[in-house]
Amino acid sequence: MTEDVRMERDTFGEIAVPNARLWGAQTQRSLQNFRISTEKQSPELITALAVIKRAAAAVNLGLGVLDEKKAHAIMQAADEIIDGKHPSEFPLAVWQTGSGTQTNMNLNEVIANRASELLGGERGEARKVHPNDDVNRGQSSNDVFPTAMHVAAAYAIVKHLLPALKTLRDTLDGKAKAFADVVKIGRTHLQDATPLTLGQEFSGYVAQLDHSIRHVESALPHLYELAQGGTAVGTGLNAHPQFADNVAAAIGKLTSLPFVSAPNKFEVMAGADALVFAHGALKTVAASLNKIANDIRWLASGPRCGLGELSIPENEPGSSIMPGKVNPTQSEALTMLCAQVFGNDVAVNIGGASGNFELNVFRPMIAHNVLQSVRLLADGAHSFNDNCAVGIEPNRERIDTLLNESLMLVTALNPHIGYDKAAQIAKKAHKEGTTLKASALALGYVTEQQFDEWVRPQDMVGRPAG
Amino acid sequence: MTEDVRMERDTFGEIAVPNARLWGAQTQRSLQNFRISTEKQSPELITALAVIKRAAAAVNLGLGVLDEKKAHAIMQAADEIIDGKHPSEFPLAVWQTGSGTQTNMNLNEVIANRASELLGGERGEARKVHPNDDVNRGQSSNDVFPTAMHVAAAYAIVKHLLPALKTLRDTLDGKAKAFADVVKIGRTHLQDATPLTLGQEFSGYVAQLDHSIRHVESALPHLYELAQGGTAVGTGLNAHPQFADNVAAAIGKLTSLPFVSAPNKFEVMAGADALVFAHGALKTVAASLNKIANDIRWLASGPRCGLGELSIPENEPGSSIMPGKVNPTQSEALTMLCAQVFGNDVAVNIGGASGNFELNVFRPMIAHNVLQSVRLLADGAHSFNDNCAVGIEPNRERIDTLLNESLMLVTALNPHIGYDKAAQIAKKAHKEGTTLKASALALGYVTEQQFDEWVRPQDMVGRPAG
Amino acid sequence: MTEDVRMERDTFGEIAVPNARLWGAQTQRSLQNFRISTEKQSPELITALAVIKRAAAAVNLGLGVLDEKKAHAIMQAADEIIDGKHPSEFPLAVWQTGSGTQTNMNLNEVIANRASELLGGERGEARKVHPNDDVNRGQSSNDVFPTAMHVAAAYAIVKHLLPALKTLRDTLDGKAKAFADVVKIGRTHLQDATPLTLGQEFSGYVAQLDHSIRHVESALPHLYELAQGGTAVGTGLNAHPQFADNVAAAIGKLTSLPFVSAPNKFEVMAGADALVFAHGALKTVAASLNKIANDIRWLASGPRCGLGELSIPENEPGSSIMPGKVNPTQSEALTMLCAQVFGNDVAVNIGGASGNFELNVFRPMIAHNVLQSVRLLADGAHSFNDNCAVGIEPNRERIDTLLNESLMLVTALNPHIGYDKAAQIAKKAHKEGTTLKASALALGYVTEQQFDEWVRPQDMVGRPAG
Amino acid sequence: MTEDVRMERDTFGEIAVPNARLWGAQTQRSLQNFRISTEKQSPELITALAVIKRAAAAVNLGLGVLDEKKAHAIMQAADEIIDGKHPSEFPLAVWQTGSGTQTNMNLNEVIANRASELLGGERGEARKVHPNDDVNRGQSSNDVFPTAMHVAAAYAIVKHLLPALKTLRDTLDGKAKAFADVVKIGRTHLQDATPLTLGQEFSGYVAQLDHSIRHVESALPHLYELAQGGTAVGTGLNAHPQFADNVAAAIGKLTSLPFVSAPNKFEVMAGADALVFAHGALKTVAASLNKIANDIRWLASGPRCGLGELSIPENEPGSSIMPGKVNPTQSEALTMLCAQVFGNDVAVNIGGASGNFELNVFRPMIAHNVLQSVRLLADGAHSFNDNCAVGIEPNRERIDTLLNESLMLVTALNPHIGYDKAAQIAKKAHKEGTTLKASALALGYVTEQQFDEWVRPQDMVGRPAG
Repeated sequence: MTEDVRMERDTFGEIAVPNARLWGAQTQRSLQNFRISTEKQSPELITALAVIKRAAAAVNLGLGVLDEKKAHAIMQAADEIIDGKHPSEFPLAVWQTGSGTQTNMNLNEVIANRASELLGGERGEARKVHPNDDVNRGQSSNDVFPTAMHVAAAYAIVKHLLPALKTLRDTLDGKAKAFADVVKIGRTHLQDATPLTLGQEFSGYVAQLDHSIRHVESALPHLYELAQGGTAVGTGLNAHPQFADNVAAAIGKLTSLPFVSAPNKFEVMAGADALVFAHGALKTVAASLNKIANDIRWLASGPRCGLGELSIPENEPGSSIMPGKVNPTQSEALTMLCAQVFGNDVAVNIGGASGNFELNVFRPMIAHNVLQSVRLLADGAHSFNDNCAVGIEPNRERIDTLLNESLMLVTALNPHIGYDKAAQIAKKAHKEGTTLKASALALGYVTEQQFDEWVRPQDMVGRPAG
Repeated sequence: MTEDVRMERDTFGEIAVPNARLWGAQTQRSLQNFRISTEKQSPELITALAVIKRAAAAVNLGLGVLDEKKAHAIMQAADEIIDGKHPSEFPLAVWQTGSGTQTNMNLNEVIANRASELLGGERGEARKVHPNDDVNRGQSSNDVFPTAMHVAAAYAIVKHLLPALKTLRDTLDGKAKAFADVVKIGRTHLQDATPLTLGQEFSGYVAQLDHSIRHVESALPHLYELAQGGTAVGTGLNAHPQFADNVAAAIGKLTSLPFVSAPNKFEVMAGADALVFAHGALKTVAASLNKIANDIRWLASGPRCGLGELSIPENEPGSSIMPGKVNPTQSEALTMLCAQVFGNDVAVNIGGASGNFELNVFRPMIAHNVLQSVRLLADGAHSFNDNCAVGIEPNRERIDTLLNESLMLVTALNPHIGYDKAAQIAKKAHKEGTTLKASALALGYVTEQQFDEWVRPQDMVGRPAG
Repeated sequence: MTEDVRMERDTFGEIAVPNARLWGAQTQRSLQNFRISTEKQSPELITALAVIKRAAAAVNLGLGVLDEKKAHAIMQAADEIIDGKHPSEFPLAVWQTGSGTQTNMNLNEVIANRASELLGGERGEARKVHPNDDVNRGQSSNDVFPTAMHVAAAYAIVKHLLPALKTLRDTLDGKAKAFADVVKIGRTHLQDATPLTLGQEFSGYVAQLDHSIRHVESALPHLYELAQGGTAVGTGLNAHPQFADNVAAAIGKLTSLPFVSAPNKFEVMAGADALVFAHGALKTVAASLNKIANDIRWLASGPRCGLGELSIPENEPGSSIMPGKVNPTQSEALTMLCAQVFGNDVAVNIGGASGNFELNVFRPMIAHNVLQSVRLLADGAHSFNDNCAVGIEPNRERIDTLLNESLMLVTALNPHIGYDKAAQIAKKAHKEGTTLKASALALGYVTEQQFDEWVRPQDMVGRPAG
Repeated sequence: MTEDVRMERDTFGEIAVPNARLWGAQTQRSLQNFRISTEKQSPELITALAVIKRAAAAVNLGLGVLDEKKAHAIMQAADEIIDGKHPSEFPLAVWQTGSGTQTNMNLNEVIANRASELLGGERGEARKVHPNDDVNRGQSSNDVFPTAMHVAAAYAIVKHLLPALKTLRDTLDGKAKAFADVVKIGRTHLQDATPLTLGQEFSGYVAQLDHSIRHVESALPHLYELAQGGTAVGTGLNAHPQFADNVAAAIGKLTSLPFVSAPNKFEVMAGADALVFAHGALKTVAASLNKIANDIRWLASGPRCGLGELSIPENEPGSSIMPGKVNPTQSEALTMLCAQVFGNDVAVNIGGASGNFELNVFRPMIAHNVLQSVRLLADGAHSFNDNCAVGIEPNRERIDTLLNESLMLVTALNPHIGYDKAAQIAKKAHKEGTTLKASALALGYVTEQQFDEWVRPQDMVGRPAG
């Protein structure tokens, strides 16, 4: 059975393209020349490219350099892509030309063929809209692709990651407040230390996420600078003098984000520093989330032979025979994806450092990693929030037991009986495996009433966290 | 419109599963609890799990602990998966429980339902084959998943990566031989240096790949050690004493690879060192390929304003107006994926270092990265070979021009006229921008005949590389 | 020969310490228990610890909890350390307890012994100032060490790194302006592209450094938050209520930096996110510098067989026989140290992600890497500036030759003779190895006068960069 | 006060060198041009360079191309360096020329001056031995430095790292045998699981180290291949035909390691794959050690509020008031240095991937990281062994308590009373916080005698690990 094909052309000549597909010759050629693994250009990037194409058509129309009918058809075709109506038309691998040219052409070809159909024409060589002359008008892959990377990354961060972090932050803040009265043993070096409240412990997580959010936000201004208008090497050759500013404004309108034309196009086309820095913020979020997820799973370890201070939601069978065995699967997913973000960071760094002269040609790889990391952290924070954090509860009895068994509370006796006698009490208790109280009473240094009055963990936890 | 569903059960109770799907309750629950990004468990891993299930059923049958009909149905269902007949039945995310339990259950459920159908029964709770008692018999996710990681990684390395590296190695070796007589300028610090042949330059790439192949091969023995038979914590509780050895042998037969039962099950279940080390070999391959791809694109840079010593195949339009502008897109794809491998390496290291007690729970992430890296390197080497390396040709005229313009050849005059006069010739040529010969003749230190006889680059390239 | 020793004590008992040394028992014990490699705690960190000790003594004096004579002696001893007068007293390895306790005690012990001497007392057990009760008063290693890390990092960034980046930025900006009229071939994918000015190319580097500076500055606010006052677990147990704020203010005064007491002590003690994020900015600087250093060495490659567009200063013998062989050694040092910064980033990420409960115990390692990266980037930028960037000069003749040989200029003929004829000219020139002009004249499409008038690279470089 | 200097010369002219120093002009110039951070070329590398110089002098003498007196003086001077007699003569930074030329010249200059003195001559320009013509005879920095990297790395691995790993392995193996009868609770996902023996748990560590040793050993053959004899670009220009093989043999004799001349010199000079792969083995060792160190510190956590199954040696004061608080400082040092090794790995990868044409110019950085990692792992393993592992003891009472409290043991009742009743017992115990036995007796499913006979953890731990 032969697939139904049509012949499309580029400067290399003819090539057969499945008739069912809107893409053209250059997309098809890339498909055949880069059969490498399964990673495709991210949907977020495809959407960003469609946004650029829509904005460029509108600006070209306004500047009088694009026919009105064509412009509207291009805008409509781009809108369809933005609305997710052509999910199977963007089949190209991440591993292609390092400028992303082939994916830019993929957009140009799909939009040209679709716009032609919207204008009553055909797809293919007789099309009414030209991929390069019309859809790519005033543009070069060298400015389009970096622009798309900034738009996609900024959008994903603002619309997905930051809300996810805020949601988790608010959940943990609610817990911090709810647990404000739960006095528990502190742990440093994994060893018993002086007490704090469970609320204070959680307030640390909240502060980590507050800082994480600020760190990510500080990466946005550089991402808001767009390359569009630099064309081939940053000089803007062949682009209308107003094109750069107008397109940035149009993209800003379409996305509700404050994009501007990059004041220096050479920097944004030859480097990828905005994305390297943004991923620096992402990996910091990963460090925060890793600490939080680890603490939660350790505090929930047990049920009998671990720390057992927290209960976490049971979302799936742990063990059929072992009631109480709740595997901390959300923590596991979260720490695994944090490890991935740390790995992605290295790939982004190498790509970002490896530009030459007027162009960085590690772009699709950088885009892939940045957008994957944003997706992992956003989805991971949501999943951890919904399936774990919201249901965390303290095991008050266990927390109390550990607190009261601890020898660390002896510190509270210092002002009353002196350091030496206090140490003697603790040493005796440790050696004999008894409680501090038993040891203190046996030594006769305090009465039971004194002990109960002086050794009060709730008096050792200081002021509430700000 | 409501999707057609059936109710499946696990110890958590009922859950609706699409009737069109073979999976069961635990798969469905994971799908709902881990909506994190788009990365799915790799097909190579699913196949390896099916191989294990098939091997286990055969071994259990042989040991008399599994009913013959059930065993054959399980084997047939597993074979269908191995043959790629159920591509839509393994929808789970990489980001799930860190032990991979949910994907092990995915296999158990799909095979149980499919085996039930093969026996004339239904899919769902009335099924004739039980996911745990029959398909997972004598197994635990804790030994199945590490086993699958070793099987999938070793198989992909032996069947895909090593042949790809050998193919590229042979192509480059052919080039090294074909270019054995092309004397060219050497470059160190990017600066002109003494000459060598293009064949010698390529022989270095061949030697890199020869070593790469040996490095990868040295990672196989540890990967051939399988966890199967360790069950929950490595003690083999509830597994038949012969199960471990028999399953390893059965898997060896199915894959034609020399798998053995790991002599120490605690190591292979609690750590992931075999995979950390194997990825250490993969990243070394990436370092080799990166050097090769970089050299090729620099040597092919131009056409007029670069080094221009090599021509590489033109596979897609570079520029419509610029004949001769051949973008080194295969080098770009290859260097991008090498950067990804370096990133993946970090993720694997963190995962591998993070086991606790009897289990490493970073497994799906490690599997994802190792198998992606193998795929990237294998496909990348093939793509680079087929679309670039096979077509590399020297630009002999350009190579000659550069060689003869070089001032470095003056070294050959030392034995004849002494270091001082030779240096004087070179300095004069550099200052005045002339050739060495012109400078030498102008200074009167040699005759034209002497110069041509003494300054022969082909005599400066030493013995052929081994 | 026996070394002259005295006996010092800690709760473990007596231990012999060289009499020539000011340190005490705990320093000595760490020296003996951690004989690991050669990396010592950074001088910047030791200075920061001395600043904290000085500030704490002043604050304790002000709060009335420390004897005036002792306070002044402690301050004087700390000042001596800050002034670099005791360089041999801080011998401890990076690889010690993860809280840095032993280095905090090293400071406490040295200051106590030295302060005792300043008060006319001895060093050793009869000392007049107590390491813990006096020098460490109101403090815990758990808040001192994170505070020192923030102080040392912020100080090194503000006083060393940012000025170094600004110096290099200004040098490159001067070059960008000086080279504003040098029209040259652009390069994308390493291939000849449309022209730009050398000034535009350098303006991209300037813009990268401008952004780098802003990225680093955005990391400062989090670093300015100090843990001091959190004591053992963040609750501030045993610290005076005003201690935290007063110490932050005192440190601010001593360093002229706007330090504040961290609003949440649990975050800053249990995590290390401020440093993880700061290193994210540092690695972005490394990506920028790597691009710049690489471009410079490639543009200076040659002298005959490379690109040869730039001359860089010759600082050391390249080759005794080869005039003009100037190895780009400053670029090499810079790219090597950028690779180190990328490596350090991973170590910092792992450390930052690995806190447990109330304390992160990867602190000395994190401090080591952050401070090393700052030092590398600051010194590297200075060295590259002084020994390379200031002396970069264009080889105008070579630049012109390449520009005029380029086929890319044909683009300028499109508006006059049409795309098809222009392409014909370029193809003929490429095939025959002639210039565009020769080809154009041979084809008879333009006159010599027309060619010279229309093909003017200086008209193709657009507006000057902002 | 003016320092006493002499004037030394290179092709750049005169430069003042401190009279007290043996180094010459090029060393001095590098010192002044590369004032970057504090990292110096590693002592191991300096020693390896001295070994090469000694071997080269002997070979040159044997081949009749070096005067006998000079040769012996060079050999004696080199021996002095090997014996550590000139520790202050090698002051150059890691961050210098990427070929290591300046450090090669540092060796040549020091040896030439010292050899001159040994022959009764002066140091300085009137010296009796020439740094280049005599000491560097038949050599180029481009083959000397890669050779030194291989020699230093292989030597450090064989003489320091492997013995350290073996020592730790043997200690842990002794523990595994000593703890063979200690039945304890297993933990997966940090949750209580089926039991194993403490000996089995430790046998996993032993197996990890056994594999680690094999992984490191598999990196040696590539390291044993030496570049010496390749001279400037790998062709061996100006080197005697027998020089390469003879030098490799001579180095082999001096080090007692089986070095050979690299069959392909282009590979070993243009790449650094042997070191990239070797570091891949080192990072695998780090993954193993990290797992072991983490397990130990968690199992020793407490004393009252952690897991508390192990006691580790108390090497320094934990807390003055808290008896029993033993901070796991050796684990902390070890995990910190493992994080550093993971970071170093990335730096090595980037360096190794970044060679161009005939030379890799990231050499001093690669050498620095590889040798640091070997030192960290060797010293870290020794420190952990001596100060922690040898003293690990089980807290048998605590281990028993946890084991008996665990609900997991209920699995043992399945064969006797069936799964349903067993699960009922476990659920009741979990809900009511009682022991399994109490629950079982309360439900009346077993007698006390039956319970004690059937629920025997020691029967659940399987066969001993191989």
